[in-house]
Amino acid sequence: MASESVLRENLATSVRILTMQGLIGLFGHVSAYEPERGRIYFSPSKGADKATVKPEDLVVADIEGNVLEGNGPVPKEWPIHTAVHKARPDVLAIAHLHPPCSTLFSIVSATYRPVTLQGAAFGDGIPVFKEPHLITTPALGLKVAKLMGKKRALLLRGHGTVVGGRDVEEMLYLNLMLEDDTRKAAQAKPLGKLQPFTPQQCRAFEAEEPLKPRSQRAWHYFSQLEARWDRQPPTGTALFV
Amino acid sequence: MASESVLRENLATSVRILTMQGLIGLFGHVSAYEPERGRIYFSPSKGADKATVKPEDLVVADIEGNVLEGNGPVPKEWPIHTAVHKARPDVLAIAHLHPPCSTLFSIVSATYRPVTLQGAAFGDGIPVFKEPHLITTPALGLKVAKLMGKKRALLLRGHGTVVGGRDVEEMLYLNLMLEDDTRKAAQAKPLGKLQPFTPQQCRAFEAEEPLKPRSQRAWHYFSQLEARWDRQPPTGTALFV
Amino acid sequence: MASESVLRENLATSVRILTMQGLIGLFGHVSAYEPERGRIYFSPSKGADKATVKPEDLVVADIEGNVLEGNGPVPKEWPIHTAVHKARPDVLAIAHLHPPCSTLFSIVSATYRPVTLQGAAFGDGIPVFKEPHLITTPALGLKVAKLMGKKRALLLRGHGTVVGGRDVEEMLYLNLMLEDDTRKAAQAKPLGKLQPFTPQQCRAFEAEEPLKPRSQRAWHYFSQLEARWDRQPPTGTALFV
Amino acid sequence: MASESVLRENLATSVRILTMQGLIGLFGHVSAYEPERGRIYFSPSKGADKATVKPEDLVVADIEGNVLEGNGPVPKEWPIHTAVHKARPDVLAIAHLHPPCSTLFSIVSATYRPVTLQGAAFGDGIPVFKEPHLITTPALGLKVAKLMGKKRALLLRGHGTVVGGRDVEEMLYLNLMLEDDTRKAAQAKPLGKLQPFTPQQCRAFEAEEPLKPRSQRAWHYFSQLEARWDRQPPTGTALFV
Repeated sequence: MASESVLRENLATSVRILTMQGLIGLFGHVSAYEPERGRIYFSPSKGADKATVKPEDLVVADIEGNVLEGNGPVPKEWPIHTAVHKARPDVLAIAHLHPPCSTLFSIVSATYRPVTLQGAAFGDGIPVFKEPHLITTPALGLKVAKLMGKKRALLLRGHGTVVGGRDVEEMLYLNLMLEDDTRKAAQAKPLGKLQPFTPQQCRAFEAEEPLKPRSQRAWHYFSQLEARWDRQPPTGTALFV
Repeated sequence: MASESVLRENLATSVRILTMQGLIGLFGHVSAYEPERGRIYFSPSKGADKATVKPEDLVVADIEGNVLEGNGPVPKEWPIHTAVHKARPDVLAIAHLHPPCSTLFSIVSATYRPVTLQGAAFGDGIPVFKEPHLITTPALGLKVAKLMGKKRALLLRGHGTVVGGRDVEEMLYLNLMLEDDTRKAAQAKPLGKLQPFTPQQCRAFEAEEPLKPRSQRAWHYFSQLEARWDRQPPTGTALFV
Repeated sequence: MASESVLRENLATSVRILTMQGLIGLFGHVSAYEPERGRIYFSPSKGADKATVKPEDLVVADIEGNVLEGNGPVPKEWPIHTAVHKARPDVLAIAHLHPPCSTLFSIVSATYRPVTLQGAAFGDGIPVFKEPHLITTPALGLKVAKLMGKKRALLLRGHGTVVGGRDVEEMLYLNLMLEDDTRKAAQAKPLGKLQPFTPQQCRAFEAEEPLKPRSQRAWHYFSQLEARWDRQPPTGTALFV
Repeated sequence: MASESVLRENLATSVRILTMQGLIGLFGHVSAYEPERGRIYFSPSKGADKATVKPEDLVVADIEGNVLEGNGPVPKEWPIHTAVHKARPDVLAIAHLHPPCSTLFSIVSATYRPVTLQGAAFGDGIPVFKEPHLITTPALGLKVAKLMGKKRALLLRGHGTVVGGRDVEEMLYLNLMLEDDTRKAAQAKPLGKLQPFTPQQCRAFEAEEPLKPRSQRAWHYFSQLEARWDRQPPTGTALFV
């Protein structure tokens, strides 16, 4: 289990990488849970500049969302995190994002199926929560956690994603993979019929290629890029994640 | 009511943020109205570099479009602003833009419907002005204002948008939201049938989540980014907004 | 008529702006013709870095493509320029580019029609040259010029564009407008049936809004941006124009 | 035949250019083969930062994949390289990439056909390897090499590309061309029916316009850009190649 200082460092780094990659910005928040101490670390909310988040900027709350430490409230949709952390002991890191491509599957009739080998991590499917609300109450959080069940991700209709990983590195990796898989699906669709992998193929692929070394390699790669990133906002892109 | 200096500061900032986000450039102009003094503040026209607009660069006109102060004429399509400011006392800030994605709904047979929760602000629909003219006369401005009615936005066929907010912050927010919503609609469409929110769902969402705190949070977020923006034009993107 | 030094300055600036906008790169070349002296100024070829082209880098040839001045040969497809300059006394500046979006209409069965008011400049249509050759001989150049006729542009199948303007500023403007119009058409198409403007509407629009002041305003705008451009290649975009 | 130092220099440069162009990143690797010495040079793996790869960072292996020199293992999918280098004496440089657009043809029912003149290099078609595995064993490598046959490229379903060139310059050029051709196909498709070139037209084009001078010109062009590239990761683009 990571120490608090490592957990804070990793969570802050994941926020900066997600910002660099265009997956978090005005909207979106991530959390990491310490089950032994019952503490959830949250990325800062209230329109904070996510490109510069540091370990000491995180807000700590208990599993009911009560703030324990830190400057400022937890993100408005904290019940997503508390409900999923409660329901899923295997999920120690969660992201709620508004990603450009993953969100597309929440606004069309089509059902998400992975089309890339990396997307095979989502071979069990991604449920869509259809109620037109932000998830601002424990009751809504509970509904989200129930619908998510044992899946790695959930889509909020016309809104965004919930993705959970066993640690911060896996949470980052899963978010990046889902975005890449859905981008390719959306861009390929006009060319012909998509050829998704079956759940069986997805499970077999993950048995062959376990997630952990892949997520660690991705962490290593993107950490290097983030370390030399100039943190400039992208000009000319109405990015509104 | 904001003082003149705050109004100038905010309007100039909104222009620079819209430039950063790729929503204004060669084309596009914004205005803010002071009803007590009957003065409209306009962003500079004539191909000014919008990335560097300062409060003192604004041009002031009366409600008939006569220049009162400032260096250079009002934007060529000033009648959009004067007509909508006259017709809509609730609208104190207006943008006319040529945004990459919002404009798409003005060139196809399909009718715009919001597909995202943030886009619910446009749940009452967006009328399309079909005449192939720039809006350079008071008569055309009046037609635009009438067609817009009580809506928050209007599309000009094959041309761009008119979006009005209760203040500069809301005007910025509405423009960013509309662009994001229409981008997602355009990119999701090949995947399947769009699942827009109903007008009832949109109204209920806005009742739950009022626009003002959201627009203020967005203002705070994008102001921070703009303050550290290097103002570089995006290379390799034939952006022509 | 512009002096040689102004012509060289403008042509070099147009190349740098086209590079900034992602319309020229490895491929593409522009020319300006001095009819009094029978001289054609060409942008440098052979893989020159177009982001840094200076007036003294241009190559001068006569109307038969014989090099008169400058370091290095004329672009391989010089016969496009000589043939169109000969056939069209109204066209004093020509671009042959491989633009990301304009080229799309050369690889599908659909016929180009303008969907934006700015694209109305191409209301008379754009013929497509279908032979699968680079235009490297006077005979092919002549065929291109004949097919282009009195039009402002021509598409080369699976290859790129030829766009002619009355001066360098207009040539730049027409290229930018065509790219924007075709980008919007391609991106809007999945949403529904395109609603192009009729040739009559296009002619009426241009009568109302003459091209010259628009192209001058665009020149002013993009020159300012180019002057402060850091000339960085765009990272992460396999731009191959 | 290039000396080892030139080969190392060129291979490292190709990796940096592919990174700049968004074709390599977390994923992807390239190799160059010295048949006289039986040595394969590999780009570094394990999540190395590809933007800064230098000649001395390459890993050298024999034709069975045994590491001979260098810091760290060969890329996990080294059997692609060893199998194709063995099977194809004409192919001295190979890339395995996960490119944003080329990969699209591996996830849809549609068959790739070139739609651009530059894409004519792939006029003989591109087979798709359909088994859902990474190519981590000699047996899988052999299957890939057999399916590729005498073609210049192969697609790995839901995964990426294998592209071979006669030298490093040609390998780079073919990768860039394939990405551009497939991007244009994907973006044009909604507009109408694609009009690909026939295999006969493709062969005739390449006879007219040999690949070697084109790949050298591209090498010259992109080397200049790479030399002045600031190596910044692109902000706001969830690029995950």
